[in-house]
Amino acid sequence: MFLFIDSVRIIPIIFVLLIHLLNVDYMSTYYNFNGQITASSEVKLSVSDLSILRGYGIFDYFLVRQKTVMFLDDYLNRFYGSAKILGLSIPVTKDEMARQIYALIKANNTTDAGIRLLLTGGYSEDGYTPSTPNYLILQHPISWVPQKDYETGIKLITHLFQRELPEVKSINYLTGIKLQQEMKNAGAGEILYHDGQFYRETVRANVFFVVNDEIFTPAEKILKGITRKHMLNIASKHFKVNEIEVPLNYLDKASEIFITSSTKGVLPVVNVDGMMIGQGKPGPKASFLLTEWEKHCEAYIKDHSNEFTH
Amino acid sequence: MFLFIDSVRIIPIIFVLLIHLLNVDYMSTYYNFNGQITASSEVKLSVSDLSILRGYGIFDYFLVRQKTVMFLDDYLNRFYGSAKILGLSIPVTKDEMARQIYALIKANNTTDAGIRLLLTGGYSEDGYTPSTPNYLILQHPISWVPQKDYETGIKLITHLFQRELPEVKSINYLTGIKLQQEMKNAGAGEILYHDGQFYRETVRANVFFVVNDEIFTPAEKILKGITRKHMLNIASKHFKVNEIEVPLNYLDKASEIFITSSTKGVLPVVNVDGMMIGQGKPGPKASFLLTEWEKHCEAYIKDHSNEFTH
Repeated sequence: MFLFIDSVRIIPIIFVLLIHLLNVDYMSTYYNFNGQITASSEVKLSVSDLSILRGYGIFDYFLVRQKTVMFLDDYLNRFYGSAKILGLSIPVTKDEMARQIYALIKANNTTDAGIRLLLTGGYSEDGYTPSTPNYLILQHPISWVPQKDYETGIKLITHLFQRELPEVKSINYLTGIKLQQEMKNAGAGEILYHDGQFYRETVRANVFFVVNDEIFTPAEKILKGITRKHMLNIASKHFKVNEIEVPLNYLDKASEIFITSSTKGVLPVVNVDGMMIGQGKPGPKASFLLTEWEKHCEAYIKDHSNEFTH
Repeated sequence: MFLFIDSVRIIPIIFVLLIHLLNVDYMSTYYNFNGQITASSEVKLSVSDLSILRGYGIFDYFLVRQKTVMFLDDYLNRFYGSAKILGLSIPVTKDEMARQIYALIKANNTTDAGIRLLLTGGYSEDGYTPSTPNYLILQHPISWVPQKDYETGIKLITHLFQRELPEVKSINYLTGIKLQQEMKNAGAGEILYHDGQFYRETVRANVFFVVNDEIFTPAEKILKGITRKHMLNIASKHFKVNEIEVPLNYLDKASEIFITSSTKGVLPVVNVDGMMIGQGKPGPKASFLLTEWEKHCEAYIKDHSNEFTH
């Protein structure tokens, strides 16, 4: 079919195209690079940085919802703790970092986003010894979990692996990323690490088991998730909650399994390595805790909505 | 004392300063960045690269001596092997990579240097999934071990740790770099990893034990060093050599310990965690093998001196 567009009709089309082009430019993101708000496309590290040469760096990640940074104190405490363990010093105080995070959100005119703090080993003369760290505050769109995953639950595969320096939120994701294709081939949404005796965590979330109406979650050699921390508080108001070394036979005993993270909230697991968990559908505790989690987040936003005026 | 410099005497001083300044400029290094010879100061990665965000990358490192790239085929085989295990594809063939390495050496007018091949997970849209890798060929001055370390031998400290994906020369050096200060405080030159039962490797070298006049070196869950490989050939012409799981009690049994790497050659160890090894001075097998190693390198250079005309 021949599409005829006369010169009068083409004007609004050009106008829409122009708006679209202007919008793309308008929407270009800013990052904070060593304290300076900088166009994201300009933020580059020289190849002598120890993150590139030696994978030496830490990060943290949290959400902005309705212009409120969620659980900011918890995330700053963890980020500064990770830096201390790796012997890296962050050149600004936590208060100043908080101020810079809110300044970036304002510069990007954001209501909802993911914020990534990143601290590297810095530009190293000998390619091995850390120097003055580079620190960055990056902003990304949030990758929410599809709604259907909450309705049907996800699958996990397991893998024998203990994360190095597990209490540090380091940038090292070698094993998780290497296994990504294997995970997708199995139709799984996450990989659950164990050390041959005990479960630890998934690549990007913490894990909870429901056994005999009690809740169990690994206590040791894991990254202490901030969502996990809040979930322990919430869940213990309603159930008996145990932070223990969770043995492998809890997989057979579990009536429910779920994982927690900032973007996932409470995500039910219905299958591990091909074995059905419970009835093979999301269980009542996971559903209840997801609702409680959402209430908790809403209450936090209400209580902290003035932080943006820092 | 007042230093008097008249206007005639100052001219050669200015001349020397100028030459020095010109020299610094003349000596600026080039790297190869995704196939292009580029001034080293211009080689930067955007912060969406997976090496920076997730420590996802591999490297390799080898020497240029007298314009000859030492054991190039071995290093290329390992580099391409590491890439394959991490699911990253190197966009050029080994022959083309060799050609680009020699072209870089020529551009830098080098006779002796360290070459670092680097391959990253690439610029990732979601900050997690690998994309087209960035590959780089970097050139650095060689950090030779001080001569006195060969004369007196070095100390080691040990650490309970098993490297992740040990057969891959990944960029992940979290534990080794974190322990650097502890190592220096102990006056040690390297950190020897063990898994509680068996010795593995040091952070940046392979390890050999001499027990009852035989040579033993860890066989499994280590990076297979190229110097180690050649050393196994050389040593087995003169001694009984065993690639085995080396148990912790070999520390008490050992009359000599030494470590091998490209920059170290054969470096004697005289003390581990404060315990004296043998007579507390470099042993005869380490000294003999260092001499044999140097002969082996000289023969290689002689045999491969025409490679530069590729």
